[in-house]
Amino acid sequence: MKHVLSALMENRPGVLRRISGLFGRRGYNIDSIVASVTEDENLTRMTIVVDGDEYILDQVIKQLLKLQEIIDVENVTDIPVVSRQLLLMKLKADVSTRLDILQLAEAFGARIVDIKADSIIIEATAEDSVTKSIVETFEPYGILSLVKTGTVALKK
Amino acid sequence: MKHVLSALMENRPGVLRRISGLFGRRGYNIDSIVASVTEDENLTRMTIVVDGDEYILDQVIKQLLKLQEIIDVENVTDIPVVSRQLLLMKLKADVSTRLDILQLAEAFGARIVDIKADSIIIEATAEDSVTKSIVETFEPYGILSLVKTGTVALKK
Repeated sequence: MKHVLSALMENRPGVLRRISGLFGRRGYNIDSIVASVTEDENLTRMTIVVDGDEYILDQVIKQLLKLQEIIDVENVTDIPVVSRQLLLMKLKADVSTRLDILQLAEAFGARIVDIKADSIIIEATAEDSVTKSIVETFEPYGILSLVKTGTVALKK
Repeated sequence: MKHVLSALMENRPGVLRRISGLFGRRGYNIDSIVASVTEDENLTRMTIVVDGDEYILDQVIKQLLKLQEIIDVENVTDIPVVSRQLLLMKLKADVSTRLDILQLAEAFGARIVDIKADSIIIEATAEDSVTKSIVETFEPYGILSLVKTGTVALKK
Protein backbone atom coordinates (compact mmCIF):
# COMPACT_ATOMS: atom_id res chain seq x y z
CA MET A 1 0.00 0.00 0.00
CA LYS A 2 1.15 3.52 -0.74
CA HIS A 3 1.72 5.83 2.20
CA VAL A 4 2.23 9.58 2.11
CA LEU A 5 4.35 11.20 4.82
CA SER A 6 4.67 14.90 5.38
CA ALA A 7 7.69 15.98 7.44
CA LEU A 8 8.92 19.36 8.62
CA MET A 9 12.60 19.69 9.50
CA GLU A 10 15.47 22.08 10.00
CA ASN A 11 17.35 22.78 6.80
CA ARG A 12 20.79 21.37 7.66
CA PRO A 13 23.37 19.62 5.47
CA GLY A 14 23.08 15.87 5.61
CA VAL A 15 19.48 15.66 6.76
CA LEU A 16 18.29 14.20 3.44
CA ARG A 17 21.02 11.57 3.63
CA ARG A 18 20.02 10.56 7.15
CA ILE A 19 16.36 10.29 6.18
CA SER A 20 16.89 8.28 3.01
CA GLY A 21 19.29 6.09 5.01
CA LEU A 22 16.57 5.28 7.54
CA PHE A 23 14.22 4.10 4.82
CA GLY A 24 16.94 2.20 3.00
CA ARG A 25 18.00 0.24 6.09
CA ARG A 26 14.42 -0.95 6.59
CA GLY A 27 14.29 -2.15 2.99
CA TYR A 28 11.78 0.57 2.14
CA ASN A 29 12.11 1.91 -1.37
CA ILE A 30 10.99 5.49 -1.78
CA ASP A 31 8.44 5.99 -4.56
CA SER A 32 8.90 9.73 -4.70
CA ILE A 33 10.43 12.38 -2.52
CA VAL A 34 9.99 16.12 -2.67
CA ALA A 35 12.06 18.36 -0.45
CA SER A 36 11.94 22.09 -0.59
CA VAL A 37 12.70 25.07 1.60
CA THR A 38 9.52 26.59 3.11
CA GLU A 39 8.58 30.25 3.58
CA ASP A 40 10.95 30.12 6.56
CA GLU A 41 14.39 29.53 4.97
CA ASN A 42 15.56 27.53 7.99
CA LEU A 43 12.89 24.90 7.48
CA THR A 44 12.41 22.22 4.84
CA ARG A 45 9.12 20.47 4.10
CA MET A 46 9.50 16.95 2.75
CA THR A 47 6.74 14.83 1.23
CA ILE A 48 7.65 11.16 0.89
CA VAL A 49 5.59 8.51 -0.88
CA VAL A 50 6.53 4.95 0.03
CA ASP A 51 5.04 1.60 -0.80
CA GLY A 52 5.08 -1.06 1.89
CA ASP A 53 4.10 -2.51 5.21
CA GLU A 54 2.29 -0.28 7.72
CA TYR A 55 3.95 -1.74 10.81
CA ILE A 56 7.45 -1.07 9.51
CA LEU A 57 6.36 2.42 8.45
CA ASP A 58 5.35 3.17 12.05
CA GLN A 59 8.82 2.12 13.12
CA VAL A 60 10.40 4.38 10.51
CA ILE A 61 8.28 7.33 11.70
CA LYS A 62 9.43 6.74 15.29
CA GLN A 63 13.05 6.67 14.10
CA LEU A 64 12.52 9.84 12.09
CA LEU A 65 11.14 11.65 15.13
CA LYS A 66 14.38 10.83 16.97
CA LEU A 67 16.49 12.71 14.43
CA GLN A 68 17.54 16.05 15.89
CA GLU A 69 16.53 18.05 12.80
CA ILE A 70 13.01 16.66 12.55
CA ILE A 71 10.29 18.92 13.91
CA ASP A 72 7.26 16.90 12.86
CA VAL A 73 6.32 13.86 10.80
CA GLU A 74 2.78 13.00 9.90
CA ASN A 75 1.30 10.08 8.01
CA VAL A 76 -1.28 11.89 5.89
CA THR A 77 -2.34 8.83 3.91
CA ASP A 78 -5.82 8.54 5.45
CA ILE A 79 -6.73 12.13 6.21
CA PRO A 80 -8.40 14.53 3.75
CA VAL A 81 -5.61 16.17 1.77
CA VAL A 82 -5.12 17.90 -1.52
CA SER A 83 -2.44 15.86 -3.24
CA ARG A 84 -0.82 17.03 -6.44
CA GLN A 85 1.99 16.30 -8.84
CA LEU A 86 3.42 18.58 -11.47
CA LEU A 87 4.06 17.07 -14.89
CA LEU A 88 6.08 18.70 -17.69
CA MET A 89 6.00 16.88 -21.01
CA LYS A 90 7.51 17.68 -24.40
CA LEU A 91 5.53 16.15 -27.25
CA LYS A 92 6.17 15.69 -30.94
CA ALA A 93 3.77 18.00 -32.77
CA ASP A 94 3.45 19.15 -36.35
CA VAL A 95 0.78 20.70 -38.54
CA SER A 96 -1.23 17.49 -38.61
CA THR A 97 -1.31 16.86 -34.83
CA ARG A 98 -0.88 20.26 -33.19
CA LEU A 99 -4.57 21.14 -32.86
CA ASP A 100 -5.46 17.71 -31.50
CA ILE A 101 -2.79 18.09 -28.84
CA LEU A 102 -3.94 21.59 -27.89
CA GLN A 103 -7.56 20.45 -27.52
CA LEU A 104 -6.62 17.39 -25.53
CA ALA A 105 -4.45 19.50 -23.25
CA GLU A 106 -7.38 21.81 -22.62
CA ALA A 107 -9.64 18.86 -21.80
CA PHE A 108 -7.17 17.78 -19.11
CA GLY A 109 -6.83 21.32 -17.77
CA ALA A 110 -3.18 21.23 -18.86
CA ARG A 111 -1.39 24.43 -19.88
CA ILE A 112 0.77 25.13 -22.92
CA VAL A 113 4.27 26.25 -21.99
CA ASP A 114 6.12 26.29 -25.31
CA ILE A 115 5.23 25.71 -28.97
CA LYS A 116 7.81 25.07 -31.67
CA ALA A 117 7.43 23.97 -35.30
CA ASP A 118 7.95 20.33 -34.30
CA SER A 119 7.14 20.19 -30.58
CA ILE A 120 4.85 21.36 -27.77
CA ILE A 121 5.59 21.47 -24.05
CA ILE A 122 2.61 21.06 -21.75
CA GLU A 123 2.35 21.41 -18.01
CA ALA A 124 -0.29 19.77 -15.83
CA THR A 125 -1.00 19.51 -12.12
CA ALA A 126 -3.13 16.66 -10.89
CA GLU A 127 -3.30 13.65 -8.62
CA ASP A 128 -1.00 10.74 -9.32
CA SER A 129 -3.66 8.67 -11.11
CA VAL A 130 -4.59 11.58 -13.41
CA THR A 131 -1.01 12.40 -14.41
CA LYS A 132 -0.71 8.71 -15.34
CA SER A 133 -3.79 9.02 -17.60
CA ILE A 134 -2.40 12.18 -19.19
CA VAL A 135 0.88 10.48 -20.03
CA GLU A 136 -0.92 7.44 -21.47
CA THR A 137 -3.28 9.57 -23.54
CA PHE A 138 -0.50 11.63 -25.11
CA GLU A 139 1.85 8.71 -25.64
CA PRO A 140 0.65 7.94 -29.22
CA TYR A 141 1.76 11.44 -30.35
CA GLY A 142 5.32 10.74 -29.23
CA ILE A 143 6.75 11.87 -25.88
CA LEU A 144 10.15 13.51 -26.45
CA SER A 145 10.85 14.03 -22.77
CA LEU A 146 8.99 14.08 -19.50
CA VAL A 147 9.64 15.15 -15.94
CA LYS A 148 7.33 14.80 -12.94
CA THR A 149 7.62 16.01 -9.40
CA GLY A 150 6.71 13.59 -6.69
CA THR A 151 3.42 14.10 -4.88
CA VAL A 152 3.00 16.96 -2.43
CA ALA A 153 0.09 16.98 -0.01
CA LEU A 154 -1.62 19.67 2.03
CA LYS A 155 -4.27 19.04 4.69
CA LYS A 156 -7.71 20.35 3.72
CA MET B 1 25.24 30.63 -7.69
CA LYS B 2 22.30 28.27 -8.13
CA HIS B 3 22.80 25.26 -10.36
CA VAL B 4 20.14 22.92 -11.71
CA LEU B 5 21.08 19.30 -12.41
CA SER B 6 18.90 16.82 -14.20
CA ALA B 7 19.79 13.16 -13.67
CA LEU B 8 18.34 9.94 -15.00
CA MET B 9 18.97 6.77 -13.02
CA GLU B 10 17.85 3.23 -12.38
CA ASN B 11 15.22 3.01 -9.66
CA ARG B 12 17.07 0.94 -7.05
CA PRO B 13 16.91 1.07 -3.25
CA GLY B 14 19.61 3.24 -1.75
CA VAL B 15 20.34 5.35 -4.81
CA LEU B 16 18.92 8.49 -3.20
CA ARG B 17 21.08 7.90 -0.14
CA ARG B 18 24.22 7.53 -2.25
CA ILE B 19 23.49 10.69 -4.20
CA SER B 20 22.67 12.86 -1.20
CA GLY B 21 25.79 11.42 0.45
CA LEU B 22 27.97 12.60 -2.44
CA PHE B 23 26.70 16.16 -2.10
CA GLY B 24 26.93 16.11 1.68
CA ARG B 25 30.57 14.97 1.71
CA ARG B 26 31.52 17.90 -0.53
CA GLY B 27 29.82 20.33 1.84
CA TYR B 28 27.15 21.01 -0.74
CA ASN B 29 23.75 21.71 0.73
CA ILE B 30 20.86 20.76 -1.53
CA ASP B 31 18.36 23.58 -2.09
CA SER B 32 15.68 21.32 -3.45
CA ILE B 33 15.46 17.80 -4.75
CA VAL B 34 12.69 16.17 -6.74
CA ALA B 35 12.83 12.48 -7.49
CA SER B 36 10.10 10.63 -9.25
CA VAL B 37 9.59 7.48 -11.26
CA THR B 38 9.39 8.20 -15.02
CA GLU B 39 7.06 6.67 -17.63
CA ASP B 40 9.45 3.70 -17.49
CA GLU B 41 8.98 2.33 -13.94
CA ASN B 42 12.59 1.17 -13.79
CA LEU B 43 13.90 4.71 -14.17
CA THR B 44 13.87 7.70 -11.86
CA ARG B 45 14.37 11.30 -12.97
CA MET B 46 15.92 13.55 -10.34
CA THR B 47 16.14 17.34 -10.50
CA ILE B 48 18.53 18.82 -7.97
CA VAL B 49 19.00 22.52 -7.25
CA VAL B 50 22.21 23.35 -5.39
CA ASP B 51 23.86 26.60 -4.43
CA GLY B 52 27.65 26.76 -4.59
CA ASP B 53 30.96 26.69 -6.37
CA GLU B 54 31.03 25.59 -10.02
CA TYR B 55 34.37 23.76 -9.80
CA ILE B 56 33.21 21.56 -6.95
CA LEU B 57 29.95 20.93 -8.80
CA ASP B 58 31.89 19.55 -11.77
CA GLN B 59 33.64 17.18 -9.38
CA VAL B 60 30.30 16.07 -7.96
CA ILE B 61 28.93 15.42 -11.46
CA LYS B 62 31.97 13.26 -12.27
CA GLN B 63 31.42 11.29 -9.07
CA LEU B 64 27.72 10.90 -9.85
CA LEU B 65 28.52 9.49 -13.29
CA LYS B 66 30.63 6.82 -11.59
CA LEU B 67 27.64 5.49 -9.64
CA GLN B 68 26.39 2.28 -11.21
CA GLU B 69 22.74 3.36 -11.21
CA ILE B 70 23.30 6.69 -12.94
CA ILE B 71 22.48 6.76 -16.64
CA ASP B 72 22.95 10.46 -17.28
CA VAL B 73 23.56 13.71 -15.44
CA GLU B 74 23.30 17.09 -17.06
CA ASN B 75 23.91 20.57 -15.72
CA VAL B 76 20.95 22.42 -17.28
CA THR B 77 21.65 25.73 -15.54
CA ASP B 78 22.72 27.61 -18.67
CA ILE B 79 20.65 25.99 -21.40
CA PRO B 80 17.10 27.02 -22.40
CA VAL B 81 14.75 25.11 -20.16
CA VAL B 82 11.24 25.35 -18.85
CA SER B 83 11.64 25.34 -15.09
CA ARG B 84 8.66 25.06 -12.80
CA GLN B 85 7.68 24.59 -9.19
CA LEU B 86 4.31 23.60 -7.83
CA LEU B 87 3.00 25.53 -4.85
CA LEU B 88 0.02 24.54 -2.68
CA MET B 89 -1.03 27.11 -0.11
CA LYS B 90 -3.89 27.22 2.39
CA LEU B 91 -4.95 30.77 3.22
CA LYS B 92 -7.19 32.28 5.86
CA ALA B 93 -10.27 33.59 4.06
CA ASP B 94 -13.61 34.88 5.22
CA VAL B 95 -16.44 36.96 3.79
CA SER B 96 -14.34 40.12 3.91
CA THR B 97 -11.25 38.76 2.11
CA ARG B 98 -12.47 35.86 -0.05
CA LEU B 99 -13.11 37.84 -3.23
CA ASP B 100 -9.78 39.66 -2.99
CA ILE B 101 -8.01 36.34 -2.72
CA LEU B 102 -9.88 34.83 -5.66
CA GLN B 103 -9.08 37.83 -7.88
CA LEU B 104 -5.44 37.88 -6.86
CA ALA B 105 -5.19 34.15 -7.53
CA GLU B 106 -6.58 34.69 -11.01
CA ALA B 107 -4.06 37.47 -11.67
CA PHE B 108 -1.24 35.05 -10.87
CA GLY B 109 -2.77 32.28 -12.97
CA ALA B 110 -3.23 30.27 -9.78
CA ARG B 111 -6.08 27.79 -9.45
CA ILE B 112 -8.58 27.31 -6.64
CA VAL B 113 -8.48 23.81 -5.18
CA ASP B 114 -10.71 24.03 -2.12
CA ILE B 115 -12.92 26.67 -0.51
CA LYS B 116 -14.21 26.46 3.04
CA ALA B 117 -16.00 29.03 5.22
CA ASP B 118 -12.71 30.13 6.76
CA SER B 119 -10.04 29.05 4.26
CA ILE B 120 -9.05 28.71 0.61
CA ILE B 121 -6.45 26.37 -0.92
CA ILE B 122 -4.76 27.63 -4.06
CA GLU B 123 -2.39 25.88 -6.42
CA ALA B 124 0.14 27.60 -8.68
CA THR B 125 2.88 26.51 -11.04
CA ALA B 126 5.62 28.96 -11.88
CA GLU B 127 9.34 29.63 -11.80
CA ASP B 128 11.06 29.91 -8.46
CA SER B 129 11.07 33.72 -8.42
CA VAL B 130 7.34 33.89 -9.20
CA THR B 131 6.29 31.39 -6.53
CA LYS B 132 8.26 33.58 -4.10
CA SER B 133 6.23 36.64 -5.20
CA ILE B 134 2.98 34.71 -4.85
CA VAL B 135 3.82 33.71 -1.29
CA GLU B 136 4.83 37.26 -0.38
CA THR B 137 1.70 38.74 -1.92
CA PHE B 138 -0.67 36.42 -0.08
CA GLU B 139 1.18 36.58 3.23
CA PRO B 140 -0.88 39.50 4.64
CA TYR B 141 -4.08 37.38 4.41
CA GLY B 142 -2.54 34.72 6.64
CA ILE B 143 -0.90 31.54 5.35
CA LEU B 144 -2.21 28.55 7.29
CA SER B 145 0.07 26.06 5.57
CA LEU B 146 2.20 25.80 2.49
CA VAL B 147 4.00 23.12 0.54
CA LYS B 148 6.21 23.52 -2.52
CA THR B 149 7.85 21.02 -4.78
CA GLY B 150 11.42 21.71 -5.74
CA THR B 151 12.12 22.90 -9.26
CA VAL B 152 11.79 20.53 -12.20
CA ALA B 153 13.31 21.44 -15.55
CA LEU B 154 12.73 20.28 -19.11
CA LYS B 155 14.88 21.27 -22.10
CA LYS B 156 13.03 23.44 -24.62
